[in-house]
Amino acid sequence: MVIDRVLSVDTIDIRFPTSRHRDGSDAMNPFPDYSAAYVVLRTSAGAEGHGFVFTVGRGTEIEVAALRSLAGMVIGQPVDELVADPGSLARRLIGDSQIRWLGPEKGVVHMAAGGLVNAVWDLAARRAGTPLWKFLSALAPEDLVAQIDFRYLRDALTEDEALDLLRSAAAGRAGRERLLLAEGYPAYTTTPGWLGYDDEKLARLCREAVGSGYRLIKLKVGGDLADDVRRLGIARQVVGPDIRIAVDANQIWGVPDAIEWMRALSPFDPYWIEEPTSPDDVLGHAAVRRAVAPVKVATGEHVHNAVMFKQLLQAGAVDVVQIDACRVGGVNENLAILLLAAKFGVPVCPHAGGVGLCELVQHLAMFDFVAVSGSTDERAIEYVDHLHEHFVDPVRIDNGRYLAPTAAGMSAQMLAASLDEYRFPDGRAWAAAPATTATA
Amino acid sequence: MVIDRVLSVDTIDIRFPTSRHRDGSDAMNPFPDYSAAYVVLRTSAGAEGHGFVFTVGRGTEIEVAALRSLAGMVIGQPVDELVADPGSLARRLIGDSQIRWLGPEKGVVHMAAGGLVNAVWDLAARRAGTPLWKFLSALAPEDLVAQIDFRYLRDALTEDEALDLLRSAAAGRAGRERLLLAEGYPAYTTTPGWLGYDDEKLARLCREAVGSGYRLIKLKVGGDLADDVRRLGIARQVVGPDIRIAVDANQIWGVPDAIEWMRALSPFDPYWIEEPTSPDDVLGHAAVRRAVAPVKVATGEHVHNAVMFKQLLQAGAVDVVQIDACRVGGVNENLAILLLAAKFGVPVCPHAGGVGLCELVQHLAMFDFVAVSGSTDERAIEYVDHLHEHFVDPVRIDNGRYLAPTAAGMSAQMLAASLDEYRFPDGRAWAAAPATTATA
Repeated sequence: MVIDRVLSVDTIDIRFPTSRHRDGSDAMNPFPDYSAAYVVLRTSAGAEGHGFVFTVGRGTEIEVAALRSLAGMVIGQPVDELVADPGSLARRLIGDSQIRWLGPEKGVVHMAAGGLVNAVWDLAARRAGTPLWKFLSALAPEDLVAQIDFRYLRDALTEDEALDLLRSAAAGRAGRERLLLAEGYPAYTTTPGWLGYDDEKLARLCREAVGSGYRLIKLKVGGDLADDVRRLGIARQVVGPDIRIAVDANQIWGVPDAIEWMRALSPFDPYWIEEPTSPDDVLGHAAVRRAVAPVKVATGEHVHNAVMFKQLLQAGAVDVVQIDACRVGGVNENLAILLLAAKFGVPVCPHAGGVGLCELVQHLAMFDFVAVSGSTDERAIEYVDHLHEHFVDPVRIDNGRYLAPTAAGMSAQMLAASLDEYRFPDGRAWAAAPATTATA
Repeated sequence: MVIDRVLSVDTIDIRFPTSRHRDGSDAMNPFPDYSAAYVVLRTSAGAEGHGFVFTVGRGTEIEVAALRSLAGMVIGQPVDELVADPGSLARRLIGDSQIRWLGPEKGVVHMAAGGLVNAVWDLAARRAGTPLWKFLSALAPEDLVAQIDFRYLRDALTEDEALDLLRSAAAGRAGRERLLLAEGYPAYTTTPGWLGYDDEKLARLCREAVGSGYRLIKLKVGGDLADDVRRLGIARQVVGPDIRIAVDANQIWGVPDAIEWMRALSPFDPYWIEEPTSPDDVLGHAAVRRAVAPVKVATGEHVHNAVMFKQLLQAGAVDVVQIDACRVGGVNENLAILLLAAKFGVPVCPHAGGVGLCELVQHLAMFDFVAVSGSTDERAIEYVDHLHEHFVDPVRIDNGRYLAPTAAGMSAQMLAASLDEYRFPDGRAWAAAPATTATA
């Protein structure tokens, strides 16, 4: 009998010239070109697993180099074993004693491991013929716990505690799955608030967001205080007192700056301040949170692993945990983070946007609802209406909610035509017009 | 007039097959091949700046890819401006809004920035005709402070506090420089303690270390508790009660494991436990420190930036700060870390070993003695007697002390013949015998 194996791992550097219109512009990222180090696992039986690491332009080639280096640990692996236990691959990728020196568990190599691990979960869910959120929700608590590396987490969450959390949620799984399929999962929108947009566009997009059913919108801040006061004032006037407005500084401040700036914005009743300072600064976030309450503190899109999330929770540094599908070591590490958040009773509002982050992370939030936290209270997945047209199974939003995906897999696959056109630097989109991404 | 500019940035993947003899073997790194992503800045006037990122084998190609990506920000730069203000380049390399997504300030891209920044300091000191430690020690406090990015540090250390620290040390600089040139700087040795060595070799190397004048030796632990008890017993018996024995777990434990294991080793009076757990776990180190006192806690070789060192100090998590020359964003960020340690009154005992880490980091420790902390009490630079023969200006050790380097630069330059022989994968050392590094 021929064993089904991973035949090859294709890697593609794909970049979208979003900086031309300043979509995605914030205080730290004035000109992002939303990009991905994209990966396809091809198997001898013909099934594919797709994954990617989201990037913002320059440096995507470094992430692609990392994917290529790690691909050797995937090529030739028996598919049945891989999909039955992606955690085993995750441990090998993340724990490789030589690669580990370049992290450990952070940055370029960790995100590459995550991209490959996610591609294996995509493959697993495709072969099972189910969307990933449902595939995960159907796993037994013991099997989920076995997917997590608890080495550095046990002082905050043990295997037994994780099992207890999952078992208590098991009873209501079926009902919540029906509810999710019927009603979707709450979304919030960042579409109105990019720094590069003028006041008129800001006001119009705020109005449209409320009209589209969103109850929470997000504005970028941190460029200039007077601008922020004006922009937040416009937004508050447009949306009224009952719509929540989160603000996002994208790490621009030190701790004292964050506190001072947020005091100046407090008259506009901001709901949370996101990334007030370095994502590494657990104690700094805790200090900001103490100073700006009742404004909440949110972070996570750049929090590089579960050890950091553990400490943010232990230190009481965050009110909102923002998981990201592409920052940590894949689905497995996000399982750990969801369980940590549940243990500490902190809601998860995933980071999304970019390219494909909405498509991926919805599966994790929906799994959390069905099988972990069991709740959507105080929770919403970020939504940005960019670049979904490049995906085979794009997210579907209705009345401010994500509809549950029903296609098999993790919704990671991009259209072949898009991969062709935006491949860097030889795709048509780049051959025609060299962009900021091409030059340092 | 022709302006002197950086003409090119050469990058070389260089690997030494150290795993063949298990030199450097520890609980997390059973088979390291000491390696470097090596970089040479070539200038139109002919001067060169050398730097590198230390790695341990597989993945060095990823680090080389990162150096190549960042090199564009260095090529063409006027040399006078670069060497007068390396901090400006450091900010551009670390702050680049697209590259930053891959960190920020951590892992592959941050180390690449550090390698380039260090090469600029090497170039600066060479052009001045002085060793880097002396070059740095001669800078005015204002000029040193201007080299540091304080954005995320001000809640622990302000510019004014840094100035005060440097000004109070300024008075004694000349005297300490003479003392350093006369007596050198204390070293400790890790040579005896690699996990892959048998008991007889351990005992012999411990005996030799004491005979060579070392007052502190270090043993790797964390593989097997019974082995560690036996090995530490042998070492303690050989060296007697007055020689300090540090132990190093290389991150193998979680917090509860670390506490339990160190209690079992306490009868042998370990001096410090190094890397008891994840380098990201500030709160975990603090918990371990509280539990294992009076055994000290040390970490730093994998602490990825100054924000993390800041928190380790704020949380009272470490007794010993172990800076590394190649982990953070170069000399500039290490200036910040030295000042943070001085502010908190915690001694710095640099991590070294590998290939070339001793050569680089001695400059930082000696600068710290002359111009920052003003002390060598409770301080020592790690020393391992591997691979120094590949350097143009290798470290010189005498009676357990580093002698101050006198050649111009940062001692980073490897011999051309060594670069030829160990270049991966086409150097003679690799063409002849494929090694663990070549296959995942």
